[in-house]
Amino acid sequence: MTRIEDPRKDLRQLGDQVVKDLQAEKNPDIQLPVRALSNTFFDEKHRLIKLGDKLSHRTYLNIAHTRKFMQTLMVAAECKKLLEQKQNTTTSIRDLYYILKRTIPGTDENTFEEQEESDPVIEDIEAAMNTLREDLHLHAEQKGSLVGPLVVREPKFETESDASKLGSSGYGIPSICEPDTVQFVSNEAEFVLVVEKDAVWQRLNEDRFWKKHKCLVITGKGQPDRGTRRMINRLHNELKLPIYVVTDADVWGYYIYSVIKQGSINLSFVSDRLGTPDARFLGLVTKDVEAFDIPKNVTIKLNEGDKKRAAELLNYVWFKPKPWQDEIQHMLKVGYKLELESLSAKDIRFISEKYLPKKIKDEDFLP
Amino acid sequence: MTRIEDPRKDLRQLGDQVVKDLQAEKNPDIQLPVRALSNTFFDEKHRLIKLGDKLSHRTYLNIAHTRKFMQTLMVAAECKKLLEQKQNTTTSIRDLYYILKRTIPGTDENTFEEQEESDPVIEDIEAAMNTLREDLHLHAEQKGSLVGPLVVREPKFETESDASKLGSSGYGIPSICEPDTVQFVSNEAEFVLVVEKDAVWQRLNEDRFWKKHKCLVITGKGQPDRGTRRMINRLHNELKLPIYVVTDADVWGYYIYSVIKQGSINLSFVSDRLGTPDARFLGLVTKDVEAFDIPKNVTIKLNEGDKKRAAELLNYVWFKPKPWQDEIQHMLKVGYKLELESLSAKDIRFISEKYLPKKIKDEDFLP
Repeated sequence: MTRIEDPRKDLRQLGDQVVKDLQAEKNPDIQLPVRALSNTFFDEKHRLIKLGDKLSHRTYLNIAHTRKFMQTLMVAAECKKLLEQKQNTTTSIRDLYYILKRTIPGTDENTFEEQEESDPVIEDIEAAMNTLREDLHLHAEQKGSLVGPLVVREPKFETESDASKLGSSGYGIPSICEPDTVQFVSNEAEFVLVVEKDAVWQRLNEDRFWKKHKCLVITGKGQPDRGTRRMINRLHNELKLPIYVVTDADVWGYYIYSVIKQGSINLSFVSDRLGTPDARFLGLVTKDVEAFDIPKNVTIKLNEGDKKRAAELLNYVWFKPKPWQDEIQHMLKVGYKLELESLSAKDIRFISEKYLPKKIKDEDFLP
Repeated sequence: MTRIEDPRKDLRQLGDQVVKDLQAEKNPDIQLPVRALSNTFFDEKHRLIKLGDKLSHRTYLNIAHTRKFMQTLMVAAECKKLLEQKQNTTTSIRDLYYILKRTIPGTDENTFEEQEESDPVIEDIEAAMNTLREDLHLHAEQKGSLVGPLVVREPKFETESDASKLGSSGYGIPSICEPDTVQFVSNEAEFVLVVEKDAVWQRLNEDRFWKKHKCLVITGKGQPDRGTRRMINRLHNELKLPIYVVTDADVWGYYIYSVIKQGSINLSFVSDRLGTPDARFLGLVTKDVEAFDIPKNVTIKLNEGDKKRAAELLNYVWFKPKPWQDEIQHMLKVGYKLELESLSAKDIRFISEKYLPKKIKDEDFLP
């Protein structure tokens, strides 16, 4: 996908087309890519989840569409207004919702009831305009953290931060993490470790894991947000750093890894910017229980949701490689999962002093 | 409360007493302060919520206590072990849960089922030992952010950070924010603005509100965690900075303010360290809708939960000052609440360029 730096023209075109339809007394019709499993495919060449070319029509004179049609035009208009502000003003997707929420005069109907209504409309516009939320100057809550020998510049804030010198909290990865907002000044790390859990990240920071192993340690605190995924993508593509991912040994952890690696179904239109196909999976896997002699009593019995989700993962084309099929089958066979923190049951520093160094040294990865 | 730097002696005493009881063939009995509304009072002199002197007994030979008795000793023992580690090792309260979770041999019973079981036990030990989680070397997830002309040193991490030079994310306030872990090197701010919402904090950071108004801007992202409340307390007590709080105009926002100001019922044993009685409330209040001509359609109708909670607030002694009684009554009369982001409905920069400057200039505070 080619990035359009300034999507104002496309936003104007969208509006012009609606006006033209109205003047011709035609039913205004906005065409939007279908963002669902049915319209995504796994691009084998780029190893990314991509958006297909199915289009849906959102028309005004269709009672099932009218509300969404209105919302789409409202969000598009507000984005255009935002782009016309001085000083590269950005706003949060929560603010956008509040700006647009109002009661339609003469009715009891609100334009939007919840932020859950406006967020998907933003994604629709991104996909339709071939643009990005970031280029619409919209941001979300800051979420991910990074620690290690990387110096980062944020021109808009006129700041330069050395991520090895920010104390216990590290560098907060900005929600908008594009080359014009976040620049890499210098780097001495040789690889990137992405850990699912904040508690593990804090352990690795406290133990100066990044210093001993010359790496950057990142956490997305659960499913990484777009800023964190974009940071991982850029560290790999611009600085050529290998990416190793560490999650819980459960279906949600494996899915988090797959999203970091090949993108998500929902945001398949930006996989090339958010996905990092060369990322590799370090652990945990259920086989670690035997391999590292982890006490069985910290394992957690699979519930029905886990089993159902595991069956789905087995069918995703990006989990087809044999090592993944083996691991997921093994999990179903032994009937348990385990969380990263369970390694603490052996020793507080087991993860930083034994588990990760051994995994990295042995190159004990899953693809 | 006098801070005990090293609570190992008290932890040992707790264990010794249980051993002594067992040797005397007595029912082991741990005495714990009752941490509930019934055992808290508002200390008028210090204007803080304080813990009373009611004690509860947690005995081993009482089927309703046995499990909690075991959990209490397990947590106490693990804290002692942690304090004996080299290098001031800290761990997260989530890790602690995992370290202690196991199946009791010969049974199907787990020591702990959820972290929700271990967290209150930690608080029990804090209250009983007259110590603090921070001094037990336990931390939680990092949560709050700070931006402004404050330089902070974290000796343990050998870092020094200028909170005005950390880009879009600001300085992440550590979960353990004690004078030995976080030191103030220099400060040029004249007051502190605490905002409930992250989106508002981001707006104020982007607009360099802190620069124009020579202040620090802090957000706890909802209810501030202990680290953030301790930071606010220390900025006021050590740097003599006035504290102004900005929340939604709703019962939860007002409660957040009251917790920042006089502490909480649950953590009443540390109010003097976490509360800041001199904090003042800048807004929002429901009267702002008229005063600032905020469009009515961004107000939100009170639900039954809001009304019930408002009635409770009216009865708390710390909401007895007339301006608060008036505001809560006004809210019930007009029947609506509103969120901070609703100010964006006027203009994206209304909050930073109009609302806050006017409130501060007019000293339009609630006590």
